[in-house]
Amino acid sequence: MSAPAKVEMESVESSLENLPPQDKTFVQKILYGDSFSAVEIPEAVRQMAAQNDFEVKAFKQHGVIPEQTRAPRIVRVGAIQNKIPVQPDAPIQEQLRALHERMAVLIQAAAGMGVNVVCLQEGWNIPFFMCTRERYPWCEMAESATNGPTVLFLQELARTYNMVIISPILERDEVHMNQIKNTAVVISNNGGIIGKHSKNHIPRVGDFNEASYYVEGTDGHPVFETAFGKIGIAICYGRHHPLNWQAFALNGAEMIFNPSATVAGLSEPLWGIEARNAAIANSVYTIGVNRVGCETYPNAFTSGNGTPAHKDFGWFFGSSYLAAPNGSRTPGLSRTHDGVLCTEIDLNLCRQCQDIWSFPMTGRHEMYAKLLTAYCRDDFVPQTVRDPSLPVAGRQQPQPAQAQASPVCK
Amino acid sequence: MSAPAKVEMESVESSLENLPPQDKTFVQKILYGDSFSAVEIPEAVRQMAAQNDFEVKAFKQHGVIPEQTRAPRIVRVGAIQNKIPVQPDAPIQEQLRALHERMAVLIQAAAGMGVNVVCLQEGWNIPFFMCTRERYPWCEMAESATNGPTVLFLQELARTYNMVIISPILERDEVHMNQIKNTAVVISNNGGIIGKHSKNHIPRVGDFNEASYYVEGTDGHPVFETAFGKIGIAICYGRHHPLNWQAFALNGAEMIFNPSATVAGLSEPLWGIEARNAAIANSVYTIGVNRVGCETYPNAFTSGNGTPAHKDFGWFFGSSYLAAPNGSRTPGLSRTHDGVLCTEIDLNLCRQCQDIWSFPMTGRHEMYAKLLTAYCRDDFVPQTVRDPSLPVAGRQQPQPAQAQASPVCK
Repeated sequence: MSAPAKVEMESVESSLENLPPQDKTFVQKILYGDSFSAVEIPEAVRQMAAQNDFEVKAFKQHGVIPEQTRAPRIVRVGAIQNKIPVQPDAPIQEQLRALHERMAVLIQAAAGMGVNVVCLQEGWNIPFFMCTRERYPWCEMAESATNGPTVLFLQELARTYNMVIISPILERDEVHMNQIKNTAVVISNNGGIIGKHSKNHIPRVGDFNEASYYVEGTDGHPVFETAFGKIGIAICYGRHHPLNWQAFALNGAEMIFNPSATVAGLSEPLWGIEARNAAIANSVYTIGVNRVGCETYPNAFTSGNGTPAHKDFGWFFGSSYLAAPNGSRTPGLSRTHDGVLCTEIDLNLCRQCQDIWSFPMTGRHEMYAKLLTAYCRDDFVPQTVRDPSLPVAGRQQPQPAQAQASPVCK
Repeated sequence: MSAPAKVEMESVESSLENLPPQDKTFVQKILYGDSFSAVEIPEAVRQMAAQNDFEVKAFKQHGVIPEQTRAPRIVRVGAIQNKIPVQPDAPIQEQLRALHERMAVLIQAAAGMGVNVVCLQEGWNIPFFMCTRERYPWCEMAESATNGPTVLFLQELARTYNMVIISPILERDEVHMNQIKNTAVVISNNGGIIGKHSKNHIPRVGDFNEASYYVEGTDGHPVFETAFGKIGIAICYGRHHPLNWQAFALNGAEMIFNPSATVAGLSEPLWGIEARNAAIANSVYTIGVNRVGCETYPNAFTSGNGTPAHKDFGWFFGSSYLAAPNGSRTPGLSRTHDGVLCTEIDLNLCRQCQDIWSFPMTGRHEMYAKLLTAYCRDDFVPQTVRDPSLPVAGRQQPQPAQAQASPVCK
């Protein structure tokens, strides 16, 4: 397995540990809020992590108001990020077997921390081969969401650990002409399948050539009511569309998971922003789960950005985290290692934030329903007010910065 | 003027300067992206800032692709944050005079850096008295958006400096029964008034009792086409609603300003998230402009959070910044001082990001128009899929974390 030549930094959080104490306290509070503190990891889990080279982090939430008519609704939420254990040129059955073996250990660690609901990364049953634009052998790895090997494997674990498992896979939909789909399967803590949801927004950016493999989901924004809360799943690129998150919230989600596969060169400065903004705007918990590591393909492919063809995907930067409706977030898992994140939260905070911030009351949904409806018409006319002193013909180029006042930069 | 007892930290950026070099480079790149670098401030402006106790910062953007059919559309965008120069118990005419005098200096500094479009903070013509729930004397400070003293004052400066000025004021609408409004007036670089826009989303949170003074704007999401680009204005609390930003973008905005007045205890961890997320999601520039300092009122007021009545608003934390459609942002102005931020940008990046990220193509606006329309009906039924193994009656409380696996925290 080829690692990239450069040494990857571990995480922003690790680097911030090197700040002087007063700066560290201040910066952490502004960058992460102050709702989460680290809690001890059980010894057995720590040993398992050390022996199997993965990271474990656990946090607990503070500051949720005790209510008089509702008991706290405590849930331990898990996020698992992992490298592909063998590279994409291995026989596909070997790849799948290695993925399952690795995941069995990671989920066992989650169970050891008492996780109730866990989300795996996008397309966890495949290498993320859509960069290649090639079909075979990897299209063979797409599998049934109801009785494929991966769902069967996880149903057993869900039952064993009394854990709801969100399993984002590459799906083969045999009922619809063998279409390939990007689908999250929601498995009940009793091992049953509650349902599935297919990715609503398909990327056309950089190496993410996924529109060549599957199309937009048609199942809307289902929210899955589980024993441990109401769950929505905004898959990967859907996190860039605020309405995708909002739609799950309008349907009652309390937690929205964002299983992803995204790389440092493309989106790393965005990663801490988008899921967290969605948590704030929608008074929900959001959980970003991202792949980690580097995947190398046998045939070179191009990225459509003028650079030479290459065989690797760059660096999936992990950094999975949970954000709360009050804007606080946990530190992330590392950028470099497989990891299991466990966060204990109280779902009651969602309604408390709705009450305190008043977003459901101030959202003016009717105004936006009308605007979006108008926008979709071919004769949509944007609402613009043009400076009457501008020249009539065409659209004016902005004037250059004023000469008299231009010493700032050349 | 009473300052809060504690010493306020200057900014996250200042604290990050204390990191070891390798950590600093890494953290800054992830937290801010890598599109902006500081540029030299003209000596005359530096002197003006030192003599008048305000901060000046200037940045220039990198990495915008040179196009073959469009010249770069370079604009220098300014943001001005300031304390109220005299406290709210001074005679209101003295307060207004002091505000105008201060602003004349700050705008002169912006002109000295070549700013083409500048945005002032929310309600810059008033102390932010809505915390008090009292009317007088401050309601008297609301003024006409067409011929009040503040717009007349700024029209002159706009002409003098060839600068578009966005002036968010407390407006007195004499045409509509003297209603008070929270309005941004857009003044052309030739001194004319291009138009105005009133706040779409009115806060009901904490000390922000603004719904007692004015109601939601009814003018939609106008985009003002100026000599220096197309401008939308999402006033303050509107930044919490992603659709508010999106509506300006659907109407063609290239820059969306967010003049604000928000305090550290309420929203500081959110401040770096929301405007920046809007820049990313909508392929636009966004500019957050926030008040700074502490305002103290003669009569104590309560905050509705169980704490005792008090006379001050907490700390307006400034931290004004600009975010680009590629997710990069500038460092912010300080949390402690008046300041002028100047950022040179190329508006061509908006369309480039639309092309590269494909959000306009992948937005599925029709699906959301339908959902929002349905949501507004009284008979809306959320799309939920309930685990069939859950008890039928009522809604189940999530089970507590499993006993066998609960050693993480008590």
